[in-house]
Amino acid sequence: MVKEVKSAKEKERPVILITNDDDITSPGIRALVDAVKDFGRVVVVAPDKPQSGMGHAITIGSPLRMRKMDLFGEIESWQTSGTPVDCVKLAVDKILHRKPDICLSGINHGANHSINVIYSGTMSAAMEASIEGIPSIGFSMMDYNYDADLSAAKQIVATIVKGVMSKKTDKHLLLNVNIPAGTMDKIKGIKICKQAYAKYEEKFAEREDPHKKKYYWLTGEFKNFDKSKDTDVWALKHNYVSVVPVQFDLTNYKLKAQLEKTKLF
Amino acid sequence: MVKEVKSAKEKERPVILITNDDDITSPGIRALVDAVKDFGRVVVVAPDKPQSGMGHAITIGSPLRMRKMDLFGEIESWQTSGTPVDCVKLAVDKILHRKPDICLSGINHGANHSINVIYSGTMSAAMEASIEGIPSIGFSMMDYNYDADLSAAKQIVATIVKGVMSKKTDKHLLLNVNIPAGTMDKIKGIKICKQAYAKYEEKFAEREDPHKKKYYWLTGEFKNFDKSKDTDVWALKHNYVSVVPVQFDLTNYKLKAQLEKTKLF
Repeated sequence: MVKEVKSAKEKERPVILITNDDDITSPGIRALVDAVKDFGRVVVVAPDKPQSGMGHAITIGSPLRMRKMDLFGEIESWQTSGTPVDCVKLAVDKILHRKPDICLSGINHGANHSINVIYSGTMSAAMEASIEGIPSIGFSMMDYNYDADLSAAKQIVATIVKGVMSKKTDKHLLLNVNIPAGTMDKIKGIKICKQAYAKYEEKFAEREDPHKKKYYWLTGEFKNFDKSKDTDVWALKHNYVSVVPVQFDLTNYKLKAQLEKTKLF
Repeated sequence: MVKEVKSAKEKERPVILITNDDDITSPGIRALVDAVKDFGRVVVVAPDKPQSGMGHAITIGSPLRMRKMDLFGEIESWQTSGTPVDCVKLAVDKILHRKPDICLSGINHGANHSINVIYSGTMSAAMEASIEGIPSIGFSMMDYNYDADLSAAKQIVATIVKGVMSKKTDKHLLLNVNIPAGTMDKIKGIKICKQAYAKYEEKFAEREDPHKKKYYWLTGEFKNFDKSKDTDVWALKHNYVSVVPVQFDLTNYKLKAQLEKTKLF
């Protein structure tokens, strides 16, 4: 009888899908699991290798593999050979056999503010869930080190997830959360922001291989072209957590109205 | 003297960067080059292998290669080992050493309407150019066959590119153009549209390899959840060319205002 009661309770608990792009063994995903494990039934489905910068890539031309893991104690976890977006698709169709109540992605080792939302595997996984009608949040931290102090980030994650789960939100809710590096006493608060027009100015480093053939590494310098104070870049610079609400309708309605008027073609 | 005059003229001609995601040998990119080669100095920089579904992926963890090709007669062409987005970055920094006046991507063998704008390598290359401040257009065709009749598509491309190049447009102008399959007499016109909320309902096909291990292929059924008549899906269904103006500011301003009011966290 006790078992049945427990199992009924288990069914009532919200299902929290967790993924990332750094890979299933990264400290960031472990911190995310730790931060929210008491809020529901957590299931981890994450890539078996780093997938940073994969954007919204999906695997079409080759098959995918997945394997059940034992990395998070009692929490169910799976690694897949796919991209972050593939992980969300596989989780819904083959692991959970239902849509989770919320999807959390991260905590990414490195920032995903401003234009980086578009390149980020972390945010693309969250966006995939949002497209599917699953409220979703991507978390990233302004510290690229694998041994970064994640204690403040964990507190922030818990606060934001608790807030979002406390009310019935739009099923397409999608948030891009970036957390300043450092300890909690340095963080001034949480700011709702817009995406800054800030980006990398790319330069490729040119090198020569032992066979005298050239190859190129992507490098770049980050530049902020957006001077307004309600952007994620401004917030992070001033030690606030930035929360940018994100949408997947990419229609430029202003340009649409212009084109309808000017009739270029 | 004649040579000098020619070279000065060459300098005045607008530079048209062409890329795609199907790879540099695809009939679609050849049709695109043919359609616009008289409008300026065309330079092709495209992937050396198929990159469909790569979304906005960039290559961070490995170096890139590029090689000058001889595939388009007098027109300069390069293949790279990177994604469509990498191609645009390499073209600007290492091949053109300047921003082109316009970037064209495609013609993709297959549709990129509705939510597919997010997964599409074709559109991500165009978006990368738009982020860089280069007006840009992605072209896709509602025919997945490599031997599709591209004659109507070529006419449509020429009309739209001519129209866009005829006026000074916003430097971030970005258009997602989808062209119905078939001949010109079937096409009813060109419609400015919004992105439909239409997407694939994914199902993974489960198979077993010779070693009795499971693997999964992404498959899906396309469903339109958007019944309005100003969408790209509606236009294509009714044999119009769809043109969706696209933006890279993903901020959901409506949700931003709501979150500022409700204070969830």
